[in-house]
Amino acid sequence: MNLLQRLVLSAALSCAILVAMSQTSAQAADAGVYRHVVLFKFKDSATAEQVKSVEDAFRKLSTQVNTITSYEWGTNVSPENKNEGFTHCFLVTFKDKAGLDVYLPHPAHDAFKAVLRPHLDKVLVVDYVSAK
Amino acid sequence: MNLLQRLVLSAALSCAILVAMSQTSAQAADAGVYRHVVLFKFKDSATAEQVKSVEDAFRKLSTQVNTITSYEWGTNVSPENKNEGFTHCFLVTFKDKAGLDVYLPHPAHDAFKAVLRPHLDKVLVVDYVSAK
Repeated sequence: MNLLQRLVLSAALSCAILVAMSQTSAQAADAGVYRHVVLFKFKDSATAEQVKSVEDAFRKLSTQVNTITSYEWGTNVSPENKNEGFTHCFLVTFKDKAGLDVYLPHPAHDAFKAVLRPHLDKVLVVDYVSAK
Repeated sequence: MNLLQRLVLSAALSCAILVAMSQTSAQAADAGVYRHVVLFKFKDSATAEQVKSVEDAFRKLSTQVNTITSYEWGTNVSPENKNEGFTHCFLVTFKDKAGLDVYLPHPAHDAFKAVLRPHLDKVLVVDYVSAK
């Protein structure tokens, strides 16, 4: 091999290793994380604007607690009719239980609950450490 | 710049682009996906072995339906006592609603339900398209 061939081969190998490391890191991020699953059913009296104010407040909350590693939500679209009236699902992820322990008593969480409470009919919370 | 410098610069740039593409692809995988959230409460009569047989059967099911893009589960560890008796949470992810439409009537799903049903007290299902 001449110098040029060696350089190209070395660059290609480094590149493959970096891509592999990057992918492993992305996949590992979801293994064994602490999931906080929150379901809401709003009062029949809650208007669309009031429901949206809660959705916006939860999104804001997710940016205010730095132990939250990922946040997503959506409204129920299941065709199975087994949602027990719950219309909203929020999936809040922490690295571990210590992340939740920062979140639960956080002042931003209290502020969110003040927005939520007047419009909430019922809530269900399940947390789990993700396994495959 | 001489040829060597150009080669090294070109390799470094290609590498950076490939790593960036790889990371974008991993992140995009979770945006706008179809989440199927399933909660179980088992009968008081269900033994630890029977509960484990359901856990194993669900894990097997997750490998039998090729529209499932990711699968995870865990048992409730929430300190909030708002789980309404549900002890198990399963998070089944599809690319879109069409993925669920393959899953729900799949023979492997029926086989799973046959394992589950004798031990199930109640179930709750919420599906959502993930938003940030």
